[in-house]
Amino acid sequence: MNVLIVHAHPEPHSFSAAMRDVAVDELSRAGHAVTVSDLYAMGFDPVAKAEDFLQRHEPDYLVYALEQRHAYENGTLAPDIAAEVEKVKACDLLLLNFPLYWFSVPAILKGWIDRILLSGLTYGGRRFYDRGGLVGKQGMIAVTLGARPHMFGPGAVHGEIETMLRPLLRGTLYYVGLRVLPPFFAYHIPYITHDARQHTLEQYRHHLRTLPEMPALAFPSLDDFDDRMQPKNTTGDDDGVCCVTFYLPLPWPVLRS
Amino acid sequence: MNVLIVHAHPEPHSFSAAMRDVAVDELSRAGHAVTVSDLYAMGFDPVAKAEDFLQRHEPDYLVYALEQRHAYENGTLAPDIAAEVEKVKACDLLLLNFPLYWFSVPAILKGWIDRILLSGLTYGGRRFYDRGGLVGKQGMIAVTLGARPHMFGPGAVHGEIETMLRPLLRGTLYYVGLRVLPPFFAYHIPYITHDARQHTLEQYRHHLRTLPEMPALAFPSLDDFDDRMQPKNTTGDDDGVCCVTFYLPLPWPVLRS
Repeated sequence: MNVLIVHAHPEPHSFSAAMRDVAVDELSRAGHAVTVSDLYAMGFDPVAKAEDFLQRHEPDYLVYALEQRHAYENGTLAPDIAAEVEKVKACDLLLLNFPLYWFSVPAILKGWIDRILLSGLTYGGRRFYDRGGLVGKQGMIAVTLGARPHMFGPGAVHGEIETMLRPLLRGTLYYVGLRVLPPFFAYHIPYITHDARQHTLEQYRHHLRTLPEMPALAFPSLDDFDDRMQPKNTTGDDDGVCCVTFYLPLPWPVLRS
Repeated sequence: MNVLIVHAHPEPHSFSAAMRDVAVDELSRAGHAVTVSDLYAMGFDPVAKAEDFLQRHEPDYLVYALEQRHAYENGTLAPDIAAEVEKVKACDLLLLNFPLYWFSVPAILKGWIDRILLSGLTYGGRRFYDRGGLVGKQGMIAVTLGARPHMFGPGAVHGEIETMLRPLLRGTLYYVGLRVLPPFFAYHIPYITHDARQHTLEQYRHHLRTLPEMPALAFPSLDDFDDRMQPKNTTGDDDGVCCVTFYLPLPWPVLRS
């Protein structure tokens, strides 16, 4: 399959870069074609703006998502956007590799999401979640962070890490229809020894090797909502599956093929 | 008091800009001094990078947070960062005004957070949440979005909006010690009539007028965790207050003075 790794770290020799290299190595050995977008090395511009469109559908008033849709349909996206969009379309697995900044992606990667995951192509109207434009592809995040593992979880100081990352895992990757694979978290990276870092890289290799057997994250299906996005079966005021990210033993079709 | 509005929308005549103007008007009428950082108008650069520091503590390997700390202590922050940091230090209320992009802030505003909320000044070590560096100040978000209100809430298709925004409300504003005021959400903005938009602006005026009586969002206190950030009293595997954002009838001291 085709893998697109989008890497975003300002230090070329960072541990995050080592994780990128491990992923390139492991996935290439497994026979996959790996493409890397190294956003800092590319000098990627993360700012969504009027100049992203070579022709404007509405020149006097910018509605960014509508211009995305128009420019994608008419082939008038700025060249840096068009190039990344082609990579997304060609990939079977989108792997975001980054250090956690404010419980989220660095701005340069947020801008890649803002500018590349086009309205029209990846979502629009009732086309999101399991009806998103990228259904059939998969997504994963590989994250370095300073916090320790015990700072996340039920009752922990920061709560569940999947809840803290909900806008990314559910609100972005799943939103566009990706099958979201279990994240890999490299904890406490700035503070651990060289040996501990090597051990973490080995754990990441193991994570990548076992991806084909891994369950995906489970999120709500639009089958359970009507055309106005009202729940079809209201079961009281419990947030239910909407509030909890859990794992289901689903098959993992693409890497098996 | 001093209010800093950080505004981030690529269209100068957007509804988000109208909300910014309403906030400037209302808060000025109430006797407050309002400063606006209009990130698009400023051409703000959101990319965290080595050049953000005029002198490097460690020239050969960039650990961004450590360089922030060093540069803040030594007065060697890049001028665009130093100017925004002074605005943050001078403000009593930080108001982020933006359109929701991927259940989060636009990249240009994410970069403002990445680059301006300095390690050392706003957090560090065990200084976060109610021990964060900006304790005594307040924070609020004012957000435009395309979704309808019924798409958020218990059992709704996107779940609770405060949960989707946890990395921003808790992981950023509360993380640095801000008292987080109730957010204002302007729903379905691209699709509603002029009259409905005017009504939303009136609702926003009312929101701003009643801020002094409003309770703050409640989040976990570090008083409930030990020096290793382990919970002092484990009450089972329920996520408890860590998982739920709720409102408490707290006093709102600053605007009263």
